[in-house]
Amino acid sequence: MTAYSELMAFQHDTEALNLIAERLGWDQETVMPRGATAQRAEEIGALETVLHARRTDPRIADWLARAEAPDEVSARMLDLIGRSYNRHARIPARLAAELARLTSLSQGIWAEARAADNVAHFLPTLAEVLALKREEAQALADDGDLYDALLDDYEPGASARSMGAMFDRMRPRLVALRDAVLGAERQPAALDGVFPENTQLRIARICATAFGYDWNRGRLDQAVHPFSSGGVSDSRITTRVVETDPFNCIYSTIHEVGHSCYEQGIDPDYAFTPVGHGVSMGVHESQSRIYENQLGRSAPFTGWLYQRMTEAFGDLGLPDAAAFHATVNRVTPGFIRTESDEVQYNLHIMLRFDLERALIAGKLEVNDLEEAWNTRFLSDFGVAVPRPSQGVLQDVHWAVGLFGYFPTYTLGNVYAGCLNQAMRAAVPGIDESLAKGDASPATDWLRENLQRHGGLYKPAKMIEMACGFQPTEAPLLDYLEAKFKGIYGL
Amino acid sequence: MTAYSELMAFQHDTEALNLIAERLGWDQETVMPRGATAQRAEEIGALETVLHARRTDPRIADWLARAEAPDEVSARMLDLIGRSYNRHARIPARLAAELARLTSLSQGIWAEARAADNVAHFLPTLAEVLALKREEAQALADDGDLYDALLDDYEPGASARSMGAMFDRMRPRLVALRDAVLGAERQPAALDGVFPENTQLRIARICATAFGYDWNRGRLDQAVHPFSSGGVSDSRITTRVVETDPFNCIYSTIHEVGHSCYEQGIDPDYAFTPVGHGVSMGVHESQSRIYENQLGRSAPFTGWLYQRMTEAFGDLGLPDAAAFHATVNRVTPGFIRTESDEVQYNLHIMLRFDLERALIAGKLEVNDLEEAWNTRFLSDFGVAVPRPSQGVLQDVHWAVGLFGYFPTYTLGNVYAGCLNQAMRAAVPGIDESLAKGDASPATDWLRENLQRHGGLYKPAKMIEMACGFQPTEAPLLDYLEAKFKGIYGL
Repeated sequence: MTAYSELMAFQHDTEALNLIAERLGWDQETVMPRGATAQRAEEIGALETVLHARRTDPRIADWLARAEAPDEVSARMLDLIGRSYNRHARIPARLAAELARLTSLSQGIWAEARAADNVAHFLPTLAEVLALKREEAQALADDGDLYDALLDDYEPGASARSMGAMFDRMRPRLVALRDAVLGAERQPAALDGVFPENTQLRIARICATAFGYDWNRGRLDQAVHPFSSGGVSDSRITTRVVETDPFNCIYSTIHEVGHSCYEQGIDPDYAFTPVGHGVSMGVHESQSRIYENQLGRSAPFTGWLYQRMTEAFGDLGLPDAAAFHATVNRVTPGFIRTESDEVQYNLHIMLRFDLERALIAGKLEVNDLEEAWNTRFLSDFGVAVPRPSQGVLQDVHWAVGLFGYFPTYTLGNVYAGCLNQAMRAAVPGIDESLAKGDASPATDWLRENLQRHGGLYKPAKMIEMACGFQPTEAPLLDYLEAKFKGIYGL
Repeated sequence: MTAYSELMAFQHDTEALNLIAERLGWDQETVMPRGATAQRAEEIGALETVLHARRTDPRIADWLARAEAPDEVSARMLDLIGRSYNRHARIPARLAAELARLTSLSQGIWAEARAADNVAHFLPTLAEVLALKREEAQALADDGDLYDALLDDYEPGASARSMGAMFDRMRPRLVALRDAVLGAERQPAALDGVFPENTQLRIARICATAFGYDWNRGRLDQAVHPFSSGGVSDSRITTRVVETDPFNCIYSTIHEVGHSCYEQGIDPDYAFTPVGHGVSMGVHESQSRIYENQLGRSAPFTGWLYQRMTEAFGDLGLPDAAAFHATVNRVTPGFIRTESDEVQYNLHIMLRFDLERALIAGKLEVNDLEEAWNTRFLSDFGVAVPRPSQGVLQDVHWAVGLFGYFPTYTLGNVYAGCLNQAMRAAVPGIDESLAKGDASPATDWLRENLQRHGGLYKPAKMIEMACGFQPTEAPLLDYLEAKFKGIYGL
């Protein structure tokens, strides 16, 4: 065996063990008995210890030094393995295991705190997680920016400075648009009524099918915080059901379908290799967002959905499909990021981005976090947070150590804006098909131009290749202004 | 750290990884998407490679040589680790990985073959599994009996010779009893009707609760072949639903509850140690069987169940609780082991025992297996197997390499007979409580005298300690004769 094939055989099993870790995470958030939390933390800790030992196995450095890549794909694999090795070799095994154990436990504590609206119950755990993540960042940062060191794990090549600059460019146009639509005379109606769980889930399944989700290689379950999980042949999605708000269930589902279709769309030859999964969180989010928003919240698709929901639930109390489209896209003051409309969503991200940068920099203490959140929220959104489950406790991310993850959501929106512009220019008939509940002209283009490549190209390069231009925030903002000015008659 | 504590820390993670492997098995048989079979085989293979490397890690021999056990519990832990090390060190890593990958795949192939009643679809895979298991047995047997080498993994201390001798003693009394009840004038009525799935599952849950199953540390799902899985804080059960036969669902559930209550009942201090799980398959089966049969199919408990089922399903077409008890315990010619009555069950085991001994000894080819099964079945049971799903394809065991496992079922029945005799002598009021749907006087005794000890004592010794006498088949046969002669008026 050559050094290259030895390394790839070793990597194969590491990738398989990674998939197992993802599957355990899915289990924990969907079906695991409540009393198993502590035991699962031990299990995850043991697996993470194995994974850390593999990711930092000294043989990797030796294989990398001797390996010759036979082609471009192989060269990229070596790059990615080297990148992972260099990151993980800097993190002590003890720290990796502590982080894995703690963040497995902390998720349950966060869920309890959120359910009880009790920030104090969560803060000691958050302080521990933060301390470990700061330690990790220090191990990675080479005296550079601590936050960048964490961000780089989710979005290779991104930096807090460039993200912050982009946010600064986006904010004025988003705020102006938000203020305009909130002040508009024409205001969409809210959906009124109670929508039974089983029917919501049935429509969610129909929508997942419409967007090309392969049920033979996935399944849909419920979770407190919807997520997708797993690889090529086993990529599962979750959603949540709020009986008074069927759009929560439906659009959470379509969002996660976007993530899972990316995984399901990757060239199966890449399975169990470093290019066998989505290349970055930002590119991943571009897929979930374009499915959810540019396609799923478009007038043609909501026209089709209006018919399906009327059949399932009876009269929705809305005059026509145009009114339904406005209701789906209704912009209102609200507290929850995941329930936010497209206009305000990125403002939620900017709030988190600034707070978590301050936490990681040591400029904000966890004991002051709730007050900082509430003050900032009032300033950014003009409304006071009524309780922590609608504020600082709403997201699982910090509980499980995902500092530096939030900005990739906005990056995903930006990438989705770019991809939508390029796709619309390239593919005729997308709207006609969406109006029939068939997203395949769009999803085929995305699969062909992006999804099938998996991790083959660097994130920004991948978007540029798919779009034919360098990604910027302009297409997203243009799209948002055109769409919402239309809906609100501005 | 001492050698002992280093070894225990190492073992902790091995036990945790073992629990992960069990959880993946559960996932595969309950919720996994169909298209994930090949991927899961790769995942299991990678995990099994890690586990094999740990079980055979040369440091274990060193630690064992230097470790001093501070007490009796620790001494037993060292014994068990040494036993596992000695077994696994003989199995080449390649063979362990091949077996894990193949038996993960073969389960799906078996399920397809069973669904299609197509033996030929399964035979090539079975031949591969058998070849690998024979190779494993040869690696373990030291020129001794190949079958014993496999049996010893499930029931340490047992041998084919002693099992065979016990079967020879049991067979005449079982056959005589079977012939007597089948020829009796008084014959219980069959249950007639269609019993909706959801209601069956609701009653199954009520029964699981009645037997003390801790839902906070477990859950119930459906599977083709019911099983229990997992450890102290996460021990899950499965059942199956046949709409015309609610006893299938109910008694599969109570059976698996027996297994899981054993795990849930183990001293939590033993978690992640070699004594933190049931000591053998035979002792495990004694718990599932005593819950299912001596308690669950007793007149007092079926009297309570009769009320619950009448409330749930309406009139069952039976005159009274005594008739219901007879129906629950009805003995009829039948093909399926897991649906068999207590009288004939062990005859099913004897058939499998002889066939699998012949397969492992190389005296029977897989191509001749179906004919051998059918010939033997006709001879033992007097009826011709109509199709392979009711014959040679009915059990998953051989597909997943569990040769030597079947006799532990009968050993479990024998142990259950012993435990029942001792428990009845020691605890007053068991029947009075069972009649109220409360098994706790019995399950408390089992927990106190057996379950809490986990793997602390060797199997036969454990039963002897709990019962106060050396286990024999006599109590089981006495119990069966008394019970069935009563029901059949003989």
